[in-house]
Amino acid sequence: MPNKVAPCIGLLSTAINMDYLVKPFQRVMPEIDLRIGRALADLGNLDQIEAAVCWHPPQGALAGLPNLRLMQSLAAGIEHMMIDSSLPREVPLCRIVDPGMAGGMKAYVAWAVSHQQRFMPAYLSSRAEQKWLEQPIVAPRKHRVGIAGLGTLGLDCATMLANIGYSVSGWSRTEKLDLPSAIKGFHGAAQLGSFLATCDTLICLLPLTNQTKGFLSAELFQQLPRGAHLINVGRGDHLVEEDLIPALDAGLLSVATLDTFSHEPLPPQHPFWADSRIVITPHIATRTEPEVIVRQTLQNLEMIKQNQVPAHQVDIKLGY
Amino acid sequence: MPNKVAPCIGLLSTAINMDYLVKPFQRVMPEIDLRIGRALADLGNLDQIEAAVCWHPPQGALAGLPNLRLMQSLAAGIEHMMIDSSLPREVPLCRIVDPGMAGGMKAYVAWAVSHQQRFMPAYLSSRAEQKWLEQPIVAPRKHRVGIAGLGTLGLDCATMLANIGYSVSGWSRTEKLDLPSAIKGFHGAAQLGSFLATCDTLICLLPLTNQTKGFLSAELFQQLPRGAHLINVGRGDHLVEEDLIPALDAGLLSVATLDTFSHEPLPPQHPFWADSRIVITPHIATRTEPEVIVRQTLQNLEMIKQNQVPAHQVDIKLGY
Repeated sequence: MPNKVAPCIGLLSTAINMDYLVKPFQRVMPEIDLRIGRALADLGNLDQIEAAVCWHPPQGALAGLPNLRLMQSLAAGIEHMMIDSSLPREVPLCRIVDPGMAGGMKAYVAWAVSHQQRFMPAYLSSRAEQKWLEQPIVAPRKHRVGIAGLGTLGLDCATMLANIGYSVSGWSRTEKLDLPSAIKGFHGAAQLGSFLATCDTLICLLPLTNQTKGFLSAELFQQLPRGAHLINVGRGDHLVEEDLIPALDAGLLSVATLDTFSHEPLPPQHPFWADSRIVITPHIATRTEPEVIVRQTLQNLEMIKQNQVPAHQVDIKLGY
Repeated sequence: MPNKVAPCIGLLSTAINMDYLVKPFQRVMPEIDLRIGRALADLGNLDQIEAAVCWHPPQGALAGLPNLRLMQSLAAGIEHMMIDSSLPREVPLCRIVDPGMAGGMKAYVAWAVSHQQRFMPAYLSSRAEQKWLEQPIVAPRKHRVGIAGLGTLGLDCATMLANIGYSVSGWSRTEKLDLPSAIKGFHGAAQLGSFLATCDTLICLLPLTNQTKGFLSAELFQQLPRGAHLINVGRGDHLVEEDLIPALDAGLLSVATLDTFSHEPLPPQHPFWADSRIVITPHIATRTEPEVIVRQTLQNLEMIKQNQVPAHQVDIKLGY
């Protein structure tokens, strides 16, 4: 009765400790065979591993699992796996779609926009001087927020910001035909400049692909209204990191809120730490809930075994 | 042609400088006769004044205007006028309803809730140590926010927070029959305790009346989940100020975000300034736009002259 054998799943990451997934997996399937590690050498008999749950897996590792049937990213992004040129392309690659993730992202984005737009840093620091310091009160409808990337999270954030009262626009690679009327839509390279000119605050929520890597660059910053606020909640590599401080120095940007970086944790000697114009949060905007990772991984593996298409499989050629 | 005479309007406040309304009035009606002051003595011939636009007007002043036809608060609240026992009750008293105000309040409330719920103070201060300090990531749906007061602003904020993903409940004096399904409703004194028990964050957006003065008291804090977050964006007098620091010391509350105080500006020697558990902002959550004050004042005065009921007239007996 081979169907009754508990699946063997590898949890592979060079970036984070995957131990937090053990109990959630065992709650659903006490007999599960989990192998956890930063490298193949940690995983025991590699022939047994049927699925790999990954976050920045070691280069070449997935090609070294001969009986792998599922490559499961533990997030919506899969670029951390696509950079491995030896990725076994015949094995289905799936991302996680977690409707609960939108909540965390929306709360973070609402905070990041209003923290700067409402002059909260000035109020928080005026306490030390016991100073009742009124700043201008600018109604949200007079502040234009643009979101680059209108996938699930981008569209949810755009709708939420419009609901608060901000003037919201959005840009995507291809045209979105079903945008809510409160969101002004732009698309494609031809409309990027017009979009950027409307962004008092620019939020990056693009997927990371070869085309979007380095999207946030000196060239882009010059097309924003002078003194714009940049929020990056996409991926660290969307930003050309060495272009940021010069853009702040030149006044093209007044402030940047970054939740994600090319190298995480952000190294202690990184110049961003010392720059008070850069708000740094440690990649906490949102995270897939462990219960969702467990459920989608087990379901996807079962579907593949039954020759069905697993949920949220990625087109490896398109990169999303 | 008496209709062609420009109206004479007094701008009366003991608390703020009303000069910011002069240009907006003159843009709409260049020939307008404006009288600005902190006291009747500043207003010239009192017989001429037909309307008084007020924010904390001097006690007894309105009874001293013999030909007054309109008392116009420049905000939604009118308690700053009701405390004058000599208020001429035969003159219509109106408040301002400004749909644009909701934007500022929603942005402030989204910020205040997420700033604490997402551990932003820890991230902001960890920068000084160049420390990548991950705090627990609690999905908004696992955080319960309660709003006391379901008027226009309260309902708008409740809907916005539910849209972000927070678990939202609301309490009002009388039952609200048309609450969106995402908001759990409570009403009346009998259900207040059940409501408070659901508030990881409690937001006060009540009107200030004799019944709601001192609503935020030691007795109330004991009914919240231990370590709750209190946000007061109602009026300063909703809070029994001397009860706050003891409630923080006792752990009943973990933090308080206050935008309004019994005495504004908050005096430099006030103990709230020195307490790092209290976030202080200088009454900036939202403000009526000057254009709206001008338009509603002039329209209301015209309606009264035509024997019509002006917009947003207050029932002086009920107090709202």
